[in-house]
Amino acid sequence: MNKLPARVKLVDVGPRDGLQNEKQPVPAAVKIDLVHRLQAAGLTEIEVTSYVSPKWVPQMADNHEVMQGIQRRAGVRYSVLTPNLKGFEAALADRPDEIVVFGAASEAFSQKNINCSIAESIERFAPVVAAAKAKGIAVRGAMSCTVGCPYEGEVPPSRVDYLAGLMKGIGVEHVGVADTIGVGTPKKVQAAFEATFKHYGVDQVSGHFHDTYGQAVGNTLAALEMGVWQFDASVAGLGGCPYAKGATGNVATEDVVYLLHGMGIDTGIDLDALIDAGAYISQQLGRPTNSRVARAVLAKRQG
Amino acid sequence: MNKLPARVKLVDVGPRDGLQNEKQPVPAAVKIDLVHRLQAAGLTEIEVTSYVSPKWVPQMADNHEVMQGIQRRAGVRYSVLTPNLKGFEAALADRPDEIVVFGAASEAFSQKNINCSIAESIERFAPVVAAAKAKGIAVRGAMSCTVGCPYEGEVPPSRVDYLAGLMKGIGVEHVGVADTIGVGTPKKVQAAFEATFKHYGVDQVSGHFHDTYGQAVGNTLAALEMGVWQFDASVAGLGGCPYAKGATGNVATEDVVYLLHGMGIDTGIDLDALIDAGAYISQQLGRPTNSRVARAVLAKRQG
Repeated sequence: MNKLPARVKLVDVGPRDGLQNEKQPVPAAVKIDLVHRLQAAGLTEIEVTSYVSPKWVPQMADNHEVMQGIQRRAGVRYSVLTPNLKGFEAALADRPDEIVVFGAASEAFSQKNINCSIAESIERFAPVVAAAKAKGIAVRGAMSCTVGCPYEGEVPPSRVDYLAGLMKGIGVEHVGVADTIGVGTPKKVQAAFEATFKHYGVDQVSGHFHDTYGQAVGNTLAALEMGVWQFDASVAGLGGCPYAKGATGNVATEDVVYLLHGMGIDTGIDLDALIDAGAYISQQLGRPTNSRVARAVLAKRQG
Repeated sequence: MNKLPARVKLVDVGPRDGLQNEKQPVPAAVKIDLVHRLQAAGLTEIEVTSYVSPKWVPQMADNHEVMQGIQRRAGVRYSVLTPNLKGFEAALADRPDEIVVFGAASEAFSQKNINCSIAESIERFAPVVAAAKAKGIAVRGAMSCTVGCPYEGEVPPSRVDYLAGLMKGIGVEHVGVADTIGVGTPKKVQAAFEATFKHYGVDQVSGHFHDTYGQAVGNTLAALEMGVWQFDASVAGLGGCPYAKGATGNVATEDVVYLLHGMGIDTGIDLDALIDAGAYISQQLGRPTNSRVARAVLAKRQG
């Protein structure tokens, strides 16, 4: 474990990626409250909302209201998803620190999810990336299905290499290696990172794991061992798995923080305050938390 | 990941360690059926039952009935817990392949759990170990609280070193490094193994992780990276956590098998048959499985 970073930055994607995939709608005030609780717990990067058609993603129709309602904290970056130029222009008024574009490493997933090929999706993102850079807004490229795809099955590293190259080609500065359906295990995840490292340095790459098969903490460890120090996670494990109803989706931020602190890796996050934030949103959703750490700590608090 | 083993042996402790810690009693016939399903799925080592006073552990009062009811399969080893000579003598009639004695790395845990010091517990085990060896029965020493203790908090590796030395001193041939309350993270777990390796070779040491804080798969990976190739796990994650009600206990065998197979490590286990065995016992207990893999696979099977 030589390459282990001393410090890790976590991006909480719960308000956007998480809540978008929860069935129950959540009022804007609750989302704003969640963001406030996350930043109070020490999160310095929060994926807040998405600028897409409310016809497709009604859960994010309140994007302006949420972004305008946040009391911004110095040192915290607020990112938003803008899949096209229309979305990007709508987002501008809300002054995001970073925009996120999504591409898939699997052709089948790209077709089924956004109705175009990988190459076409990149063409569509190119003007968004250029516009963001012109405005001095950072750009993150989320690469989905880098290990497995619900339609194609296993995704070889060569597809990740291809996608990362396309992202680099349109000027995306940072890419996330996502195991969208949680099927990855450590060696496969490391292979996806290796393919990405052909185009990006370790400081420009983050990991995004789902815990559907209980492997997210192990995959995080495997990425840490490669020197990766930036990860997405979702408070309370918000967001289910759309490909296996009732199964777990995004890894819970609490569980990743527990891993990191246990290994002496600094995150700047107050785990107890984070657990409280997760308990708050879980209560709002009327369902138990998906974080094992939160479950254990809350059980112990109750005696 | 140089030291990764090519093959791993898993010991399913569900019938004993798991069911002993489930509130709901399970009939002997169901336990026997579970053992049959586990061996049919390819498990070659099963911790079946315990020979302790039914006053203390009523769940295991049917030890003879269960052991006598099993249709033994060639190549499968059946282990039982025998904490004292009386228990060992009771077990003899049932021809166990291996007996298990338990010691704690934490003084407070030893006192609270078995009402004596660590040194006293070892004195009590010594004649059991000698008697087993005289009969040609293998002996495993389970070392509990090797990372953390519900009463003392963090347990330093020096205490594991001490306990492993005592185990070695009375002739215990194999020891298990157990994170009984699931608080361990990879570096702490590796330190517990390092302390154990002062007394035992890697082939004489197994890992036993609890998933209470969601770290068991990561800890398994950390142990694999040290060359450890023997692990306990519990089908369906049977056995809760007595120190945090509602929290997860033993790591689910399914989740460990998924990790191993995903890394190309052979276990000889048919994961689908194992998931069926876990679904069977979960249904008998009237509760959902604690295996994330099983949850995802069962959800997908239902479409």
